[in-house]
Amino acid sequence: MAVYTDVGDEELAAFLATYDLGQLLSCKGIAEGVENTNYFLHTSAGSFILTLYEKRVNEADLPFFLGLMEHLSARGLTCPQPVRNRAGQALGRLAGRPAVIVTFLEGISVKRPSARHCRAVGAALAKLHLASADFPMERPNALSLAGWPPLFAAAEAQADRVAPGLAERTRRELAHLSEVWPATLPTGVIHADLFTDNVFFLGSELSGLIDFYFACTDAFAYDLAICLNAWCFEPDGAFNITKGQALMAGYEAVRRLSPPEVEALPTLCRGSALRFMLTRLVDWLNVPPGALVKPKDPLEFDRKLAFHRRVSRASEYGWGA
Amino acid sequence: MAVYTDVGDEELAAFLATYDLGQLLSCKGIAEGVENTNYFLHTSAGSFILTLYEKRVNEADLPFFLGLMEHLSARGLTCPQPVRNRAGQALGRLAGRPAVIVTFLEGISVKRPSARHCRAVGAALAKLHLASADFPMERPNALSLAGWPPLFAAAEAQADRVAPGLAERTRRELAHLSEVWPATLPTGVIHADLFTDNVFFLGSELSGLIDFYFACTDAFAYDLAICLNAWCFEPDGAFNITKGQALMAGYEAVRRLSPPEVEALPTLCRGSALRFMLTRLVDWLNVPPGALVKPKDPLEFDRKLAFHRRVSRASEYGWGA
Repeated sequence: MAVYTDVGDEELAAFLATYDLGQLLSCKGIAEGVENTNYFLHTSAGSFILTLYEKRVNEADLPFFLGLMEHLSARGLTCPQPVRNRAGQALGRLAGRPAVIVTFLEGISVKRPSARHCRAVGAALAKLHLASADFPMERPNALSLAGWPPLFAAAEAQADRVAPGLAERTRRELAHLSEVWPATLPTGVIHADLFTDNVFFLGSELSGLIDFYFACTDAFAYDLAICLNAWCFEPDGAFNITKGQALMAGYEAVRRLSPPEVEALPTLCRGSALRFMLTRLVDWLNVPPGALVKPKDPLEFDRKLAFHRRVSRASEYGWGA
Repeated sequence: MAVYTDVGDEELAAFLATYDLGQLLSCKGIAEGVENTNYFLHTSAGSFILTLYEKRVNEADLPFFLGLMEHLSARGLTCPQPVRNRAGQALGRLAGRPAVIVTFLEGISVKRPSARHCRAVGAALAKLHLASADFPMERPNALSLAGWPPLFAAAEAQADRVAPGLAERTRRELAHLSEVWPATLPTGVIHADLFTDNVFFLGSELSGLIDFYFACTDAFAYDLAICLNAWCFEPDGAFNITKGQALMAGYEAVRRLSPPEVEALPTLCRGSALRFMLTRLVDWLNVPPGALVKPKDPLEFDRKLAFHRRVSRASEYGWGA
């Protein structure tokens, strides 16, 4: 939620001159996106988002992300569409950073989703999984099973400062997941970060998905587990089974889950909760002085993890209701 | 440069329902304005800025600021125009804050102004001074002569931590200005903060002025002195007399300065430089933990002050060229 890189008016004008976007009318830094710098751009050709990729994004991954957005747009999924410059390139450079212009998406993200919102998100997630079936690129998920131990190693010594017992709990969770993590589920491109701020609605209709910068190749059902964690818990920490049912029903109306996927859901939910707990924990323990972004609470996902440990069947999330 | 107050989608919808602005299409926090929280708002009726006033703005001053923007808009000056709700009110409440919706202004602020930009700003400043002649409200300038000693008192003990000798230099400057500060110059509504980020251009044409939240009743020539400080120094600290000439010529093409105003300029420039040095110094020494805004360098204005101390005549700023 910050502007990390300032763009001067002259370098912006020079950058835009390589595009067919008409006259620049306005450019405002927007407080959105924790990883990158985003500007709202208004030109005589319309509204756009200008993104400057900051250090946490690996430049080698950008062709995957941009190609995916183009692929999904072409298949009718509403998501930001990279704009190519006159040389046919979507990826440029501005203010010393890789930079891209994408189309602007109308819509509002909801803070407290209803079951109806959850159903719409489930359906959109399934459509994304189907639409990416013929996307030719792959990107391994660096934040899955093999990525968690190094994250934990960076935080282990200080974890109990955040909550007593957190280090030991996490150690046991990692050991358990490494034994039971499913290896053969149906796989393809997943969004991997479909939290409420990445889904737009107009009224009660879903109007688009944004922020594909964690997208990768992994189990579809893992993406569903991420959404169960992101959409179906109440602010008091309780899992809302009505919302879980709605999310799963929305998903299965578009793409049926196979029996192994259903069976794996409790494990995938644990893994997904652990993944967000770990990245938040590392961020929490490493807030740089003068940080522009408030770190998110890792314990929110420690509590969700505790809930998933008590779940034995997908029906407890609302599946098959 | 931050979003201090988050607005939920439901409370935003309820707030907008009191206006005739059609359907909400988009709302994004923008990284603009150090004092307040600003959202870019897109509805089926057009583009707007939603401002939530944070603690540093005195609520009792808001009718002055909003009334001034309405007054100036009505007289053809391009500035944000407060939008009234169905009850005819411009000022509302949202997320526990006083809140207002103003029209969105196209344009880009320049980082490195040319003499041409300076001339346009001078002319716009003079137009503002003339257009506010029949504005009926008054607001004393809390950041003029009488306001500086308390600011300095809050920073004096630590000033030398920022630069050796700063405390003694500032003490002498305050003593000098309290003796020579002009009391009888032509007075009216001044912008009082017309830095480059508050002036928009489309191409090389000035397209509007924003941020009237320091506007107050004070000497017109003091506003000009603020602009000389804000627009006519180079990044290396040198005063650019060509830009000074352009700014003054632009101003005088619209409103002639009287001989006492011209004579007072070196003193007014010293006072204006001291004012920004002092507020920046206090901010610099009081960065709260977890601050979302990087404090600006007070020494920039200490150096400008040193330049003005050596100036004896307005011609050294470019007047009468």
